[in-house]
Amino acid sequence: MKVNGTHYRSIWLNQDGWRVDVIDQTRLPHEFEIVTLETLENAARAIEVMQVRGAPLIGATAAYGICLALREDASDETLEAADARLRRTRPTAINLMWALDEMMASVRNLPREDRLAAAYARAAEFCDQDVATNEAIGRNGLKIIQEIAAKKPGETVNILTHCNAGWIATVDWGTALAPIYMAHDLGLPVHVWADETRPRNQGAALTAWELGSHGVPHTIVVDNAGGHLMQHGQVDMVIVGTDRTARNGDVCNKIGTYLKALAAKDNDVPFYVALPHSTIDWTVEDGVRDIPIEERSAEEVTHLTGKAEDGSIVKVQVSAPGSGAGNPAFDVTPARLVTGLITERGVCEALEAGLLSLYPEKADG
Amino acid sequence: MKVNGTHYRSIWLNQDGWRVDVIDQTRLPHEFEIVTLETLENAARAIEVMQVRGAPLIGATAAYGICLALREDASDETLEAADARLRRTRPTAINLMWALDEMMASVRNLPREDRLAAAYARAAEFCDQDVATNEAIGRNGLKIIQEIAAKKPGETVNILTHCNAGWIATVDWGTALAPIYMAHDLGLPVHVWADETRPRNQGAALTAWELGSHGVPHTIVVDNAGGHLMQHGQVDMVIVGTDRTARNGDVCNKIGTYLKALAAKDNDVPFYVALPHSTIDWTVEDGVRDIPIEERSAEEVTHLTGKAEDGSIVKVQVSAPGSGAGNPAFDVTPARLVTGLITERGVCEALEAGLLSLYPEKADG
Repeated sequence: MKVNGTHYRSIWLNQDGWRVDVIDQTRLPHEFEIVTLETLENAARAIEVMQVRGAPLIGATAAYGICLALREDASDETLEAADARLRRTRPTAINLMWALDEMMASVRNLPREDRLAAAYARAAEFCDQDVATNEAIGRNGLKIIQEIAAKKPGETVNILTHCNAGWIATVDWGTALAPIYMAHDLGLPVHVWADETRPRNQGAALTAWELGSHGVPHTIVVDNAGGHLMQHGQVDMVIVGTDRTARNGDVCNKIGTYLKALAAKDNDVPFYVALPHSTIDWTVEDGVRDIPIEERSAEEVTHLTGKAEDGSIVKVQVSAPGSGAGNPAFDVTPARLVTGLITERGVCEALEAGLLSLYPEKADG
Repeated sequence: MKVNGTHYRSIWLNQDGWRVDVIDQTRLPHEFEIVTLETLENAARAIEVMQVRGAPLIGATAAYGICLALREDASDETLEAADARLRRTRPTAINLMWALDEMMASVRNLPREDRLAAAYARAAEFCDQDVATNEAIGRNGLKIIQEIAAKKPGETVNILTHCNAGWIATVDWGTALAPIYMAHDLGLPVHVWADETRPRNQGAALTAWELGSHGVPHTIVVDNAGGHLMQHGQVDMVIVGTDRTARNGDVCNKIGTYLKALAAKDNDVPFYVALPHSTIDWTVEDGVRDIPIEERSAEEVTHLTGKAEDGSIVKVQVSAPGSGAGNPAFDVTPARLVTGLITERGVCEALEAGLLSLYPEKADG
């Protein structure tokens, strides 16, 4: 998508044809800075310190991390060490492991002299696949927005989203935001309510930055506001992303998603979840019961980082000193609250039968 | 309630018998500082800059503001000017107007030489009445906590609250927190989930400070977390306060309350609202439809104030620069989601019939 009129992906090959450029997301939303990765260690650190985040982008960065390692030395030892180093960066990121499995499968059995070219080719393919998947999600979600727009001609379609499932969490387009970018680019009048998304504020910081940079009208609201907006007819639909989708259609996403789904149900607002097939965990039968929820550090709740008036980036404590904080990072929205799942293959009901109608090859799984 | 083992009210007469001491709530939770009000202007400013906040405490401070004005000059002109000055401090605070009406009625028709003593007596009575009302709310709510505790002997009763309806918003006890303080003081094992309450963070800052200072076990959570906690059996009941209660039992409270009520309903968690009769607006037939919601400044959403590592209090921007924010300050929870209303006269269903069973004198109103 665009930043000040120029199209960007979140990761791309430098003009020199071998180094890798990424947007330093730790500087967003206050500064737009591009970092060039030259070594395996640069790539690993970029993932660790969250200069890059979002499952697809982490996978893409790891893929290029293998390339950068092979460029220095294409031996088996270097390859295995690079793989191990990258796996340690975010040990719970399933997408990261999958990307590394793919990369290793593509290069491990090649002669040393062919490995580097094959790795760069596979990494590029990896990125293009992600873009194509998200573009397909966007096209499928766009139809839903168009249907809503057709019912209120000339009026703005108001869409609420939670957290950041936008282009900078992927290689391009995003998942939940892909249909919104498409609608906007086609000239449909869309306006986004961007949930702040405490405690890490991805909505106020990243989603708002993305939408603003591309020119999509939007308004930040605190996470508390969505129910009131829906109660008063100010939300036409909700679209969120997901980190993990259970076989029964339960959806694990950023903490607070469940509350928005409840409000949507209570006010007859359609609630959609956009996802690539890679987030579907066919082994989980009941998401609410079985998906473990990561508990993150209390400091994410008690402290916040922002830009002071003098331009410096400062961390401040915003809570009572001495009080502890709980920080469950995700929640699971029961399938009964989900209007539909938007995937790259189409839109389905949030049910096992719905998912299997799009992915029949999983029927025996 | 207690601060470091010493009992405090939020407002009290100084040892000199005429000046008025308050806790500077703009310094909380980072510093506990007592401010002494000596003049009408001190009192008016304390309300304006929110050194004191919370409807009952604002009323009490205004009452003492009249006393401080009369101490300098008990003339009609001074009295009327003081009344007008104090009314301008928070023009939408209904409780403030009521307190001033009461004070003016108590002193206006007295001879000049009797006014000062009458004013101090009425202000003290005003404070004592607030404490008695909240203590009665506490006793009535305590029974509900005791019933829940009886069902899980020896186990902790987990109570979620939103915003701050504690003792520092009143003269003492608070409304939603009064039953919790009583249960704790009686040795019942209670634990409070304190919702952060964005955008002004009253939960993380004030409720957590109050509970911590009194020694009540508690944990701060972001507003997004409550649904997940309820889904997993970690909340036994919800108690919140209210700014305005409609005749039909709809409850207007801090933005986000509605989302917690939805989650409570979805998980069969009892959802109670604690209120003194003064918050019941008998003229509003349908709260969701008819209660106007104040839209506050975007900066409350986009910026946050906290304590930096060097000890300074700093304001930082936490959202994307250039992105606007919406800031509805309250929402209305429909009566159908409310298990019961806890008032100083007892607990009733959130229905007109329920309220009238406690306040039969309003049946013709």
